[in-house]
Amino acid sequence: MPDLDLSADVVTLTRQLVDIESVSRNEQAIADAVEAALSSYDHLSVLRRGHTVVARTDLGRGERVVIAGHLDTVPVNANLPSRYEERPDGDLLHGLGTCDMKGGDAVILRLAAGISEPVRDVTFILYEAEEIDSEFNGLNLLSQSDPGLMEADFAILMEPSNAEVEAGCQGTLRLEVRTTGERAHSARSWRGVNAIHGAAEILGRLNGYEPRKPLIDGLEYHEGLNAVGISGGVAGNVIPDECVVEVNHRFAPDRSEAEAEAFVREFFAGYDVRLTDSAPGALPGLDLPAAKAFIEAVGREVNPKFGWTDVARFTSLGIPAVNFGPGDPMLAHKQEEFVPVEHLRRCERQLTDWLTGVVG
Amino acid sequence: MPDLDLSADVVTLTRQLVDIESVSRNEQAIADAVEAALSSYDHLSVLRRGHTVVARTDLGRGERVVIAGHLDTVPVNANLPSRYEERPDGDLLHGLGTCDMKGGDAVILRLAAGISEPVRDVTFILYEAEEIDSEFNGLNLLSQSDPGLMEADFAILMEPSNAEVEAGCQGTLRLEVRTTGERAHSARSWRGVNAIHGAAEILGRLNGYEPRKPLIDGLEYHEGLNAVGISGGVAGNVIPDECVVEVNHRFAPDRSEAEAEAFVREFFAGYDVRLTDSAPGALPGLDLPAAKAFIEAVGREVNPKFGWTDVARFTSLGIPAVNFGPGDPMLAHKQEEFVPVEHLRRCERQLTDWLTGVVG
Repeated sequence: MPDLDLSADVVTLTRQLVDIESVSRNEQAIADAVEAALSSYDHLSVLRRGHTVVARTDLGRGERVVIAGHLDTVPVNANLPSRYEERPDGDLLHGLGTCDMKGGDAVILRLAAGISEPVRDVTFILYEAEEIDSEFNGLNLLSQSDPGLMEADFAILMEPSNAEVEAGCQGTLRLEVRTTGERAHSARSWRGVNAIHGAAEILGRLNGYEPRKPLIDGLEYHEGLNAVGISGGVAGNVIPDECVVEVNHRFAPDRSEAEAEAFVREFFAGYDVRLTDSAPGALPGLDLPAAKAFIEAVGREVNPKFGWTDVARFTSLGIPAVNFGPGDPMLAHKQEEFVPVEHLRRCERQLTDWLTGVVG
Repeated sequence: MPDLDLSADVVTLTRQLVDIESVSRNEQAIADAVEAALSSYDHLSVLRRGHTVVARTDLGRGERVVIAGHLDTVPVNANLPSRYEERPDGDLLHGLGTCDMKGGDAVILRLAAGISEPVRDVTFILYEAEEIDSEFNGLNLLSQSDPGLMEADFAILMEPSNAEVEAGCQGTLRLEVRTTGERAHSARSWRGVNAIHGAAEILGRLNGYEPRKPLIDGLEYHEGLNAVGISGGVAGNVIPDECVVEVNHRFAPDRSEAEAEAFVREFFAGYDVRLTDSAPGALPGLDLPAAKAFIEAVGREVNPKFGWTDVARFTSLGIPAVNFGPGDPMLAHKQEEFVPVEHLRRCERQLTDWLTGVVG
């Protein structure tokens, strides 16, 4: 089993985590290492569920905060092991997961190991399978198996957000919009009905889409409606009888999933629309006292989160939650992902100050 | 290996052939059965090239005719095994390949087995992979490996033509019309350029296409321009950076391949157009003596051939050729394809009369 040294510098620890390959469904090694490393600290109670590790303080503080990060990554893309780059404008750590999100995980492990008497009780959660279908998601499974472990006054998800606070998140719907036609030999095409030609109007409507950009709690969201896939065709000499356009709708958190679905059904009126996946957005909740206090304590600007994150899971449990983690979210899932070393240090410092009562 | 009984009735034999599934690139079983069945007749020399079977008489007649059919079919579409339907207006045989073109193949096998001393020497060719790219086409491969086997004074292709003579054929071009964009996470779609949305205009132009219908040797042709495939998409949360529309253009035989290519390049001006496959049309050639003689002998009306067939391959070798086979070409590649039993019997009778000297 690879050893993790939680007393090492946050950059060294990030590298150790990155160099344990942990593509979704292959988190055993990293979860074993995390569990073993945390278990040696007496101020933590450590539990394991699948490849999800939970470490809690229980000091009877008046407030409890969850700080969470996922241990899995998207597939390897010739970007392991990690690589350190010294640069005059700030050093970078390159490699799969540096940004999404082992940099955040390293900060979590540093806080868990290093702060034995936090001013707020903390539940640290390092979980499996965030990058794949939500049925495997460790946080989702934990909320079903041990709902008590999710209880908190506030939650911080250390997803990459440029070491700034990103509040709320947009919801996401996936749908298939389908045209049907009638097959015929392409030499006598006038005897059939071409379903691919029929998709012209679907793509035309998408081109005419005007995104809503609602302002919520002072944050400007930005919706999206995009074809993310298209397929049709039977053979090179057959008029195709079906064409499927796969559409992804990202909707601001002032709309429910049902409202978003109604919107896309209206938008594609006249076509066969099938919903294939759906996740709600999360309102920023910046008016809630715990969120306000955290933001004041870290003294950072707040931005809207466009992508969907597990923040929405906490919101649906009634727990205010924000994203706050090292790394540029634009680099997530990109081959060239990296994390600025300065982000790692800044997140560690600010959260340490907040948990030890230096601020907040 | 399935057994074929070449002494059985042409309908029974058609059913036997249909019930051996032989989608393009899966012709081994049917070719094995055909080769084995033909090899038991002493008046034939049988050769095998890939999954193409050639059987020849060599009686030193003054004339040689090629009679050819392909053994493959388009993909199965819940239309196997075969099904016989008794009807007051004429019985039908239903199923994949009944029309295109195992009915014709059965006639060929009946002629090959049953006529040991034809008045004209005959080269029977049962070949693979007609329904896919011409690089796999058995007749094309044979013309390269054994050009001597293709030599003849006249050729009959038993492609479905309602048991009438169809002369000439339209040419066919396949091309890819491509849009490019720029990837981005679909939660921030405005950072990318959606290549699928960009294909709307391509489909729009296809919807506006007006076909030419030129009159050649008294026969009216009918061109076509159709999307036969479309694909695009990277992942459910990525703005796609490429979309490819596969287009099939069918052009009348008064245009060369180069003229047809110039037309599609002009039609899709502004887009990346790549030619992937091309085959010339064939002028009807009804003024050539061998064609005239056959048409007089079978005494049938002549129609234009819309589909591309391997007739063009013979025409390009300087061999006059016609289509004459059972089944309605409109039903080729349709799920509900069938062949009228009367067509099978009529084609067999007329070709038997012509090969045994009863007519012509």
